[in-house]
Amino acid sequence: MIRPNLLYRNNTFVENETLTIANGLITAAPSAAPPTELPTKALIPGFVNVHSHAFQRLIRGKAESRATSGKDFWSWRGTMYHAAANLTPEDVYDVSRMAFLEMLLSGTTTVGEFHYLHTAPNGQPYDDPNELAHQVIAAAQSVGIRIVLLNSAYLRAGFELPPDPGQRRFYETTDSFLKNTESLLAAYPGSNEVTIGIAPHSVRAVPLPALKEVLHWARAQALPIHMHLAEQLAENTASLREHTLTPIALLAKHSLLAPDLTAVHAIHITPAEIAALSASGSTICSCPTTERNLGDGILPADRILEANIPIALGSDSQAQIDPLEDARQLDYHLRLQHQQRAILDQINSTSIATTLFNTATRNGARALQLPTGSLTPGEYADYITVDTNDPSIAGHTPDSLLPLLTFGLNRTAIRDVAVNGKIIVTDGHHPLAEEIIARYTQLHRRIWSDAPPSPSNR
Amino acid sequence: MIRPNLLYRNNTFVENETLTIANGLITAAPSAAPPTELPTKALIPGFVNVHSHAFQRLIRGKAESRATSGKDFWSWRGTMYHAAANLTPEDVYDVSRMAFLEMLLSGTTTVGEFHYLHTAPNGQPYDDPNELAHQVIAAAQSVGIRIVLLNSAYLRAGFELPPDPGQRRFYETTDSFLKNTESLLAAYPGSNEVTIGIAPHSVRAVPLPALKEVLHWARAQALPIHMHLAEQLAENTASLREHTLTPIALLAKHSLLAPDLTAVHAIHITPAEIAALSASGSTICSCPTTERNLGDGILPADRILEANIPIALGSDSQAQIDPLEDARQLDYHLRLQHQQRAILDQINSTSIATTLFNTATRNGARALQLPTGSLTPGEYADYITVDTNDPSIAGHTPDSLLPLLTFGLNRTAIRDVAVNGKIIVTDGHHPLAEEIIARYTQLHRRIWSDAPPSPSNR
Repeated sequence: MIRPNLLYRNNTFVENETLTIANGLITAAPSAAPPTELPTKALIPGFVNVHSHAFQRLIRGKAESRATSGKDFWSWRGTMYHAAANLTPEDVYDVSRMAFLEMLLSGTTTVGEFHYLHTAPNGQPYDDPNELAHQVIAAAQSVGIRIVLLNSAYLRAGFELPPDPGQRRFYETTDSFLKNTESLLAAYPGSNEVTIGIAPHSVRAVPLPALKEVLHWARAQALPIHMHLAEQLAENTASLREHTLTPIALLAKHSLLAPDLTAVHAIHITPAEIAALSASGSTICSCPTTERNLGDGILPADRILEANIPIALGSDSQAQIDPLEDARQLDYHLRLQHQQRAILDQINSTSIATTLFNTATRNGARALQLPTGSLTPGEYADYITVDTNDPSIAGHTPDSLLPLLTFGLNRTAIRDVAVNGKIIVTDGHHPLAEEIIARYTQLHRRIWSDAPPSPSNR
Repeated sequence: MIRPNLLYRNNTFVENETLTIANGLITAAPSAAPPTELPTKALIPGFVNVHSHAFQRLIRGKAESRATSGKDFWSWRGTMYHAAANLTPEDVYDVSRMAFLEMLLSGTTTVGEFHYLHTAPNGQPYDDPNELAHQVIAAAQSVGIRIVLLNSAYLRAGFELPPDPGQRRFYETTDSFLKNTESLLAAYPGSNEVTIGIAPHSVRAVPLPALKEVLHWARAQALPIHMHLAEQLAENTASLREHTLTPIALLAKHSLLAPDLTAVHAIHITPAEIAALSASGSTICSCPTTERNLGDGILPADRILEANIPIALGSDSQAQIDPLEDARQLDYHLRLQHQQRAILDQINSTSIATTLFNTATRNGARALQLPTGSLTPGEYADYITVDTNDPSIAGHTPDSLLPLLTFGLNRTAIRDVAVNGKIIVTDGHHPLAEEIIARYTQLHRRIWSDAPPSPSNR
């Protein structure tokens, strides 16, 4: 039982109330134990990061140059492929631990890891073809973050394109993908801290028949399904050429959209596509910090929310890891575009702070099919304590703390982070931080000791 | 003498070199004293915040609603006026200390405070008409930040507009403004930690004859001159109606632009206005975090840098205080607009990291006419130490640290902050933080215990 100064409940904060935890779950049952008093803290749900490529932490700060990484998304990919090309299984473990450590310190208690690095550097499967997925999961377990491993199907470079050597480690066949995902499911039975979903990479990388096959298979087992859709205009153009339909329109036409599907990015979408996503109950995962870094464009979050489509958030390329900064960018980018303020306020009669806070919490839980993100009884006890005297949010009142957090919170305010009721980060410190950072630093230097990658326009 | 692991020098980092400080200045002279060793730190110049309205810290998180603060800049102003309406001199001191504390913790060693709160709540001057300016300066001195008090001339509500009760505390006459500024100059002789500049508020608030008079006066004394220009389209329209010219074009026509002038915001500007600013040697101060919050629009930083106009940065409304987040937004907002990456890279053959880092440091020093911001001998010893093992920047190398900092640094990495060689923040802690935050919290609650302000469309 915990008694913080302010407890998040139903989109606001209540004073002097307690949160009771039993067996890792939040419970409504009374507890006889005396509460742990946290008189200068607010207690909020842990953040849910729906879309992560952990290994891309390696390219933070390394791809901000027209000379080495080019001027668009497609040339940036060359730098990303360079980072992926030579990682050993141990390296994948080390960089994943680094990314997951920073997520925990930022208040993230669950990560959806969109995992497409499958084979050895030469393109051959490891003895265990899930070797790298196991490393990513082991990294999450070591650091203490809840993980949904979204196993990615990446079957080709694109429509009528020859295989790309930079993608050598991503490719599988439909059969090997299904077989490997089955093995993964069998390897983590009964754990709520490690679950499995699937991620057909994109319409570019997965032909339509294969897409139908893997979705059919996944739906028989009620797995969450995540897919990059409409991040880049060129992706839409290629799909038009192959299918005469853009990616989301293609999925709609073939009745592949459903509540279990999360469309990652969904930036370049038409009103008809918004209507189709809305009718299907799908979620959109936005990654604003990465999307601004990659120059992807601005999500039409106003039209999406008006259509009752839930928006969740992802740290994607790890350009920065800061869930509420992502949340506020959903509105801020629209403000810049429309030269108005608080664009997302009062859509469906909901305050902007509630709408944005939910993108970082309960909407993510929905996209990953996990009971967490709102501190209601029966959910996993995944929570954060926030120092209400932190300079970034000092001067709150119970009714103003949610907007103040949402628009102002700095990572310095995040003190304790708990997953399944276990405190993983204590007063801003993670017990393994020093070792994780030292190993990551060695890895980073080795990877980038090669000459910088030359631009690619593939 | 200090020996960090990595020392910022000439837009890059050098290993195992020392920085020598004598009498608060950086010196090239050798020192016999053994160096202070900082083996896990990088040492960089302190950030220069060119444009601050300290009291607006009170509206963080309080103006994010269409119901209470409206949907545009002009209705947001109503909330801001509410915060300003009832502050006592002691309140001005308390809120200024809060804002300056957060700036120091964010690595800001100099603030340019654009000060337009002059009179008592009833519009009458205090016994000392500089009472509130003295409070702001005392707050800076108490907290330990270097301040340039930019005393603002705010003479009217606008062309052909009656006085606005919400602006009652801002108004002065030209004569009282000049007299009060003279008194301010006399009150802080010989201090390098407190200097004075002037800030004709805007073309809206200062009629042209008065503008000419105060600029003439200020230039005779070589004071820095700051002015809001072209933040909002409505401001341009009003100037067109009064002068048949937009604000910057008006200043250009009357030869009022010069290297001592800083145009704050300058978002809505034409190619001819960019050319005029460029020819004059003026600086532009951008405040991207505030401008995204207010929905002002996107600075055309690419065209501005191509014209060799220096860009500096300000925290303005204190929506967030994070200098490098402001710096990176200069590029990120253009990326979203143009759907390309690294727009500002290689303009004038300069790397994007150098260009952005300079906006937060040496360009600000130029705008405030202070020798600081680049750690070169003869400058004030205003510096920050950064934990190179912080998760936000772990994995650096000497040549990659500048882009990694610029694009990734989180406040958690900022450990020690020194002004004039005196360490003010030690390992992330300011000795007065607890008291400052407690007093600010009381103030905040008192100000907002009134009913929320109703929207205004003035």
